[in-house]
Amino acid sequence: MAKTSVPDISSISATAVPLGSVGLVSPQFITFDTPLRLTSGQVLPGYELAVETYGELNAERNNAVLICHALNASHHVAGVSASNPNDIGWWDNMVGPGKAVDTDRFFVIGVNNIGSCFGSTGPASINPETGQPWGADFPMLTVEDWVRAQARLADYFGIDKLAAVMGGSLGGMQALSWAITCPERVGSCIVIASTPRLSAQNIGFNEVARRSIISDPDFHGGNYYAHGLVPKHGLSVARMVGHITYLSDDDMAEKFGRTQRAPADNGEFHYGYGVEFEVESYLRYQGEKFSTYFDANTYLLTTRALDYFDPARSHGGDLARALQGVKADFLLVSFATDWRFPPARSREIVRALLKNNRAVTYAEIDAPHGHDAFLLDDARYHAVVQGYYDRIAAKLGLPERSQTQGVLA
Amino acid sequence: MAKTSVPDISSISATAVPLGSVGLVSPQFITFDTPLRLTSGQVLPGYELAVETYGELNAERNNAVLICHALNASHHVAGVSASNPNDIGWWDNMVGPGKAVDTDRFFVIGVNNIGSCFGSTGPASINPETGQPWGADFPMLTVEDWVRAQARLADYFGIDKLAAVMGGSLGGMQALSWAITCPERVGSCIVIASTPRLSAQNIGFNEVARRSIISDPDFHGGNYYAHGLVPKHGLSVARMVGHITYLSDDDMAEKFGRTQRAPADNGEFHYGYGVEFEVESYLRYQGEKFSTYFDANTYLLTTRALDYFDPARSHGGDLARALQGVKADFLLVSFATDWRFPPARSREIVRALLKNNRAVTYAEIDAPHGHDAFLLDDARYHAVVQGYYDRIAAKLGLPERSQTQGVLA
Repeated sequence: MAKTSVPDISSISATAVPLGSVGLVSPQFITFDTPLRLTSGQVLPGYELAVETYGELNAERNNAVLICHALNASHHVAGVSASNPNDIGWWDNMVGPGKAVDTDRFFVIGVNNIGSCFGSTGPASINPETGQPWGADFPMLTVEDWVRAQARLADYFGIDKLAAVMGGSLGGMQALSWAITCPERVGSCIVIASTPRLSAQNIGFNEVARRSIISDPDFHGGNYYAHGLVPKHGLSVARMVGHITYLSDDDMAEKFGRTQRAPADNGEFHYGYGVEFEVESYLRYQGEKFSTYFDANTYLLTTRALDYFDPARSHGGDLARALQGVKADFLLVSFATDWRFPPARSREIVRALLKNNRAVTYAEIDAPHGHDAFLLDDARYHAVVQGYYDRIAAKLGLPERSQTQGVLA
Repeated sequence: MAKTSVPDISSISATAVPLGSVGLVSPQFITFDTPLRLTSGQVLPGYELAVETYGELNAERNNAVLICHALNASHHVAGVSASNPNDIGWWDNMVGPGKAVDTDRFFVIGVNNIGSCFGSTGPASINPETGQPWGADFPMLTVEDWVRAQARLADYFGIDKLAAVMGGSLGGMQALSWAITCPERVGSCIVIASTPRLSAQNIGFNEVARRSIISDPDFHGGNYYAHGLVPKHGLSVARMVGHITYLSDDDMAEKFGRTQRAPADNGEFHYGYGVEFEVESYLRYQGEKFSTYFDANTYLLTTRALDYFDPARSHGGDLARALQGVKADFLLVSFATDWRFPPARSREIVRALLKNNRAVTYAEIDAPHGHDAFLLDDARYHAVVQGYYDRIAAKLGLPERSQTQGVLA
């Protein structure tokens, strides 16, 4: 059913990379030929997944951790890309030898989701039926579809049960969905800065982003590839609005405040629509940079999958009922200043799990960085995750943590 | 210096309009020929202000109240537009006979700011030098410029000192600026749901709106009038993002939640980028409607004036020093769920006033409606304002409130 097209990761000596890094990494591209029936009723005839792995799968095949990514990320979770020394994995502070997710003990899998633009089959890939990029014809996806595709990846590695499935934000939704849809295959479920469903405000911001992209004339109904164009203005505005929601008000005040960017010689404003404030410069830069590497159709698909996620929906809105069949233990982490997915949303999941008598650990971290905190290196946050993985390792009888490398040792 | 081009308001019998309405109203257009030097250093050669007034200026000329408007409003504060029976003033629940701002006792002035698109001179007006619409050449404006233009309006009416200057949001900034720049001319200053300066997050959202408008190809660098076009997509997205920030997360949850709009026959989603949720339908509608009547250059100008407002800036960031010369009494009102200009911003003004030993009344209203609460008919909020105006009236020796019409009587 599946084959590897690029062999494996490589790693170089610890002297050339920072202590605790998994080293140089390269993706595998794994092809799945069996059609995938999607939630929408459409069928993806086959697909390729871009994957990175770190550490070694043990003989018992019980030490695998699957890391699910959020909107703007990929399979490149940790280490340094062999093809680009500046490309550090997005969760490199979390995953590596001696780190919270210790690759000396766990076999960690980073997978790029279908629909993405970072290597797995997505809207920019060639539609085998037409020989042209899928574009607007790429099927709509849900979190559950991603989990289904990832479950086949676990099969490919011969893993019946994952030690843990872990993700932040949209990645946390995938972890939660794994625990619901594949209860026998998840030992521990780690859901960080996430939510059981988007609020009206969340959907509203997503819709702003989508209207911005779709109304860019260079979008061409999603088939901009054929025109050699990118809806860069729309994508840039979408990213700007997204970015604001990832940061806390306080964090933006701290980072930028009302600091002027290159004021006039007399210190005054320029009185125009050029950049006056640092925050404008930062957001424009983020927007423009994003529009050079991210695919607009992927942005649309992914925000829509976020909107649709609502496991309680098929249970009359009762999240506890939706979680009735889960068998995993849970770690939930939220961040006090996250106004995108605030702690109350995590607490809702915690309560629903407790109603089902599940073992739940919950940490609410008083970090100032808003939603983005889940990507940052907060010592208390990482200590909670590391402690939780130590418990997982102990339960599974995995070797002791190395005493010399632990980030918190 | 100034002349009236349309005479006055007219009113019809109370049986044809709701009790407490000022009745049918028409604007005056008042021309000011003396050039106005602006904060930017540019000069507006002359300008016309659209104005509505309600009630009568008394012989002492001490009962005048100036109402300053926010981003999306005008001189049409109260009553029913004589030219359109569906056009009710934006603060009609606040201003009228027997209402909190009682037009039986006060002479209330609603003024449309320069730069607007509702009657006063703005970017769509004809530039006398070119005979063409000003467009991108219309000068940049600040809150202080608006106050300067409004002060000339007070002169025009022969009013030395206003009983009160009052506004919400951006209107509150104008009221505050009046108290600072014309301390002898303001009896009471009423600042509602406002802030002494925008935060980085506020500026960020404004910049998103501006990039959306400016990158719309129909914007044509601000000179879209000449092309017979309107940058409607950009303006629509700008309005959508603005609208989200006016509502509280809870209010949006209450109003829309995740309610589906016209689901598929089986109750499922359509799996596409059409409208799936009520909140999308609402925001699209608001955006599209706005783009049919609001001028894009006015939106740009106004958001920029919001960004620039910061009276403490010329006093080393010390708001108390900026307020040192004020002589007015103050009423500040904020709303608990307003995350655009949260209560902490109003409290900052209160503290700075108290440092200067000013008389300050402050109310923090626990209303669920976010920033928009300042426009809504909350009984506690209106009771605070009405009580404050009763005190103003008593101090000035104005006649007693009518006993039969008081909304809260």
